[in-house]
Amino acid sequence: MKAIDIIDKKRLKQELSKEEITFFFNGFLNGDVENYQMSSLLMAIVLNGMSDEEIYNLTETFIQSGDVLNLDSIKGVKVDKHSTGGIGDKTTLIVAPIVASLGVKMCKMSGRGLGYTGGTIDKLESIPGFKVNLSEEEIKRQVNDISLAITSQTKNLVPMDKKVYALRDVTATVESIPLIASSIMSKKIASGADKILIDIKVGSGALIKNVHDAKHLSDLMIKIGNRYNREVRTLITDMDTPLGKAIGNSLEVVEAVSILLGRDKDSYLYKVCVKIASNLVSMALGESLNDAQEMVVQNINNGQAYAKFMEFVKRQGGDVQKLKISDKKVVIRSELSGVIQNVDALKIGMVAASLGSQCEKEGDQIDHSVGVVLHKKNGDFVNRGEPLCTLYVGQREDYLDPLDAFEIMPQ
Amino acid sequence: MKAIDIIDKKRLKQELSKEEITFFFNGFLNGDVENYQMSSLLMAIVLNGMSDEEIYNLTETFIQSGDVLNLDSIKGVKVDKHSTGGIGDKTTLIVAPIVASLGVKMCKMSGRGLGYTGGTIDKLESIPGFKVNLSEEEIKRQVNDISLAITSQTKNLVPMDKKVYALRDVTATVESIPLIASSIMSKKIASGADKILIDIKVGSGALIKNVHDAKHLSDLMIKIGNRYNREVRTLITDMDTPLGKAIGNSLEVVEAVSILLGRDKDSYLYKVCVKIASNLVSMALGESLNDAQEMVVQNINNGQAYAKFMEFVKRQGGDVQKLKISDKKVVIRSELSGVIQNVDALKIGMVAASLGSQCEKEGDQIDHSVGVVLHKKNGDFVNRGEPLCTLYVGQREDYLDPLDAFEIMPQ
Repeated sequence: MKAIDIIDKKRLKQELSKEEITFFFNGFLNGDVENYQMSSLLMAIVLNGMSDEEIYNLTETFIQSGDVLNLDSIKGVKVDKHSTGGIGDKTTLIVAPIVASLGVKMCKMSGRGLGYTGGTIDKLESIPGFKVNLSEEEIKRQVNDISLAITSQTKNLVPMDKKVYALRDVTATVESIPLIASSIMSKKIASGADKILIDIKVGSGALIKNVHDAKHLSDLMIKIGNRYNREVRTLITDMDTPLGKAIGNSLEVVEAVSILLGRDKDSYLYKVCVKIASNLVSMALGESLNDAQEMVVQNINNGQAYAKFMEFVKRQGGDVQKLKISDKKVVIRSELSGVIQNVDALKIGMVAASLGSQCEKEGDQIDHSVGVVLHKKNGDFVNRGEPLCTLYVGQREDYLDPLDAFEIMPQ
Repeated sequence: MKAIDIIDKKRLKQELSKEEITFFFNGFLNGDVENYQMSSLLMAIVLNGMSDEEIYNLTETFIQSGDVLNLDSIKGVKVDKHSTGGIGDKTTLIVAPIVASLGVKMCKMSGRGLGYTGGTIDKLESIPGFKVNLSEEEIKRQVNDISLAITSQTKNLVPMDKKVYALRDVTATVESIPLIASSIMSKKIASGADKILIDIKVGSGALIKNVHDAKHLSDLMIKIGNRYNREVRTLITDMDTPLGKAIGNSLEVVEAVSILLGRDKDSYLYKVCVKIASNLVSMALGESLNDAQEMVVQNINNGQAYAKFMEFVKRQGGDVQKLKISDKKVVIRSELSGVIQNVDALKIGMVAASLGSQCEKEGDQIDHSVGVVLHKKNGDFVNRGEPLCTLYVGQREDYLDPLDAFEIMPQ
């Protein structure tokens, strides 16, 4: 078998066999296949697609490239959630304690942010003292005790995905539904949960730009899950505009707490979190979605979800009271009166990153205390001179101007 | 400007600007753009194509990457020919002396073979004493004196093509009409001729597999030539089956001499050579194609073409009398009686290469004395036990069985 013949087959839009996929991707991982051959194949996949069978085989090759977590020692049904990423997405911080407060077991591996998209681990690390590196034993004990643990990747999970993704990132081969599906699902399956909810973000601030692609991705992930006997549900949610008001690590923890306390119930963030949590509870406990939603709302209202959050943070060593938020605030005011057409997610993400909230490239230092808080959302009226958002500024002076992110129709 | 944005644009099938093409390809040549980014862009070009404007700009970037030959000191119209390559293609050895015998100036840079496709320089080197490395001054003096010189590349001509082609060769990105057109035409234009004939080979033994692609390539090359004020004509000729009877370096020189002596006038090889030569003469002297063809045939019949070949070989130090052909012959006989449906060009090329006639990869040693001589061509009847071909065998014992190359319909 030769790497070049495999690339050529995909160039000609022919289906690759399981052996060919395994040969090529394993070869890449161990250095027998060159990165310039992999990037050529990746572009051919991006443009010519993959059959379902190819996607299953790729996912399996990914899973087999590393360790697979065995969660059998945790009693009960284990759930997991994943979001395809976006600006201001702090749903894990909210959803995880809600479902855990209902006794649903969640043992979650989370990632760090990259580019303009935040990562749950960075957000949790903004809580002074919070430990993100739990051992496998610690995780299992903690989930058995309090139903919830969130940790950065412990085991050598899907190393192939890491290496392939790093190449995709610099060769314009990220935007491929088959590659996205196998990347996400291999990690979710290797992480060991029984029931999985995938929140597919669509819009300017997301990887997926339109609902058609999101539906395709959704179908694929459900099918892959079924192959591995995992129940997978998906939600397609909006990411044209940031999720919630806060963008930046400490600021997002504060907003998560406020949602857990039942504030801001009209917000899209609240609604998305209730939806995700209800699906997880429904899958784990076998309840109807309506019944599950009632339980979720009840546990927000009665303070159980918030209490679970505080218990979880304390158990991992964190102290929410000590959260640091920059006291150097810059209020950005509207230059005209009108209706907010859109607050652009990508642009706000770039502003927050320019303040230091994100690793834009590996090795960047994060400032957890900085970020953006939005005062206006889509459809709101704003008067000239009225605040649009507040920047929480750190050491960096050369941050981007957020005015660009607000599309206002003058009135 | 960022390399990844340029790849992304081509992924989305958008037109690249001149600046983007120059930035990316120059960056690759000087090491600023990584080979894995180039291979990703190349695959996107292979699958999404290029507009004419992009192809012109790519060709120009290629030309500007090295030196350009100035042939002004050679009096008269200078012609050049190029074949897209095939098995048994010795047309240059035949056409060049024909046109030179009519006073048409031909100053030709030729290449070595690679893979299964022979190279004119390898064939000429099979003539003992033949010098293939002429200086620029030697070339010009020789062409002024005897109208003809053939040399391996002297100047630093289109180094970008060399580097890009080496990558295409290992990333399954060779088969792209825009990339083939700019690769060939940049070299032809940098080589300085006024009138150019391109022989586009189509078939199993060629890069181009069908006539539709050949026509597209033809149109493109003519258009590119016009941009540079060069008259370009093309021929589309068959390469499903080897061109002529001999495959292998010394053997092909012998066959070329036999054609120049006017033997085998019914052969496809003779007809193709007359066509190519007639077009070159017609372009150079402004004659009609019919008149040019009469002149060509006359100079074969009256021995002028052959005399020019001998003069040319002697001038470059070669001695045809000393050609070495292996005396270890293996006659391959038909195992059944029937009609030859096809003698497969690619397979015969592989047999010859396995005997040692070709560099299959860089660094391989060529044995000029080995090769294949076909005794039967498509449409011929063969009796069981009758010879199909003779192998001229050298040191290698593990050569391929040629029987596979003969498709015979039993009768």
